[in-house]
Amino acid sequence: MTSRSLEKCRIRFFACLLILLPAVSLAADNLTWRQVDPENLVFMEIGEGRVTLELNPLFAPRTVEQFRQLVRDRFYDGLSFYRVLDGFVAQGGDGSDLGELSLVPLIKAEFETELPADVRFKTVQRGDLFAAETGFIDGFAAASDAAGKIYWLTHCPGTVAMARGDGADSSRTDFYIVIGQAPRYLDRNMNVFGRVIEGMDLVQRIQRGRTDENGIIQDETRSSRIRKMTLASDIPKDERLSAFVVDTNSGGFERLLEDRRNRKQKFFHNKPPEVLDVCQVPMAGRVTK
Amino acid sequence: MTSRSLEKCRIRFFACLLILLPAVSLAADNLTWRQVDPENLVFMEIGEGRVTLELNPLFAPRTVEQFRQLVRDRFYDGLSFYRVLDGFVAQGGDGSDLGELSLVPLIKAEFETELPADVRFKTVQRGDLFAAETGFIDGFAAASDAAGKIYWLTHCPGTVAMARGDGADSSRTDFYIVIGQAPRYLDRNMNVFGRVIEGMDLVQRIQRGRTDENGIIQDETRSSRIRKMTLASDIPKDERLSAFVVDTNSGGFERLLEDRRNRKQKFFHNKPPEVLDVCQVPMAGRVTK
Repeated sequence: MTSRSLEKCRIRFFACLLILLPAVSLAADNLTWRQVDPENLVFMEIGEGRVTLELNPLFAPRTVEQFRQLVRDRFYDGLSFYRVLDGFVAQGGDGSDLGELSLVPLIKAEFETELPADVRFKTVQRGDLFAAETGFIDGFAAASDAAGKIYWLTHCPGTVAMARGDGADSSRTDFYIVIGQAPRYLDRNMNVFGRVIEGMDLVQRIQRGRTDENGIIQDETRSSRIRKMTLASDIPKDERLSAFVVDTNSGGFERLLEDRRNRKQKFFHNKPPEVLDVCQVPMAGRVTK
Repeated sequence: MTSRSLEKCRIRFFACLLILLPAVSLAADNLTWRQVDPENLVFMEIGEGRVTLELNPLFAPRTVEQFRQLVRDRFYDGLSFYRVLDGFVAQGGDGSDLGELSLVPLIKAEFETELPADVRFKTVQRGDLFAAETGFIDGFAAASDAAGKIYWLTHCPGTVAMARGDGADSSRTDFYIVIGQAPRYLDRNMNVFGRVIEGMDLVQRIQRGRTDENGIIQDETRSSRIRKMTLASDIPKDERLSAFVVDTNSGGFERLLEDRRNRKQKFFHNKPPEVLDVCQVPMAGRVTK
């Protein structure tokens, strides 16, 4: 925290401590960072600015492969977020207007998976409302069944997944970004394949549709658009931005979770229950030159 | 749903059904509406547009009384959202720059309460992660202890509460709106006194501060501002807008909850657990002439 903002805190002391709480945790000592593989790093330029995504081929190899190909083919460039419900999802990337949809294959469902032996699941909460256990796998919020055998990526704010019809294998190009309270009831039912690691403030500016029109934006000239999507690995190394996310396997992250689970600050006159909502742990990354 | 959007759905059928799910619930038959008391209805004009709040004097009588007076005194007009953390809160209404703060009294804590016998608590979920029970009281998300004796308003997206320092009785004028995944760990620790019933899409456009500066916006010319706050009851009746919120005591709302808890659509290949996150039930209201 800069001295200038500290000074402001003194002037505005009524509010400062509340806001310090989560930020202090984010800036915890010994927090280590993992560099995102450029093959899994996507820059999505929208009218509102640059949004950075990390793809997850461990959980959704087929979806990630198809998404990468669509990005490389410039399929998404110019397409709109045509259906956006505040508090739910921003959905875009529909190419049916282009008349080339039939060339794009359907994706076979990959809703959940078993984990390779070398992949670590960092437990956050046992007895979560929607799963036997929640936690993080390499920065991605995830959950498991009671047997600890099946794992899936959970729907949290910033989660990126493929939309589909009723058929499990019916997703193709349309994707959505979660922009509201985690719709966990969708867990184990969608091809979740990535998350926003920077720029959620910009995603929150995406033009909404009306609730009574299911979020569909009738006047397409009003909708927010994807200007350009680029895979970092397709950018020459010396021009490429790098992205870093918190290493959820590190000791520093363990302490961050513990600080949030067991809040000891005198601010809390009623001590909160020692539980954690996996979707409420701030997991923003940073993008640098 | 209009025929035009249905047509779009056919064209874009891959994604339509996903998005229909929550909206269908919102438009459920027999949903009845309650008109908001003009004494509890506040129109907050911000640069982004009109945001409508409902105050809750049942849970926070002293806070609501002070807030109403501040609104009538035009205290908030022109003040900024000076600390905004994406995924957490938008905080504004600090008058220390005006040099008149000492005239505004501190508010004695009102974090939780017992319920009068005639107030109905509509149960949503027993064994919630953060409370023995969650539910709604007249449209407000709330929770109770195991004995069913103490109740409090929960922190959900759109919740409006007073900021404070470490002291329980230290809130005064600064308030915050929750803009991200419900920070339930703040429950029973803040004077929660209202909720946004319309305009959360505009609240989501409020200018953010940097995470590494705790959301404080250093350059005040960049911050979003409150142009004007008005209590509906101060507007002449014939010029006044009316606001309606879902009647959470109605049979229609009971069915809406049941539809969300027990999802039977063929869309769900893995049936979700029969649980509900009280903060994930869409509770937007509507404002009309």
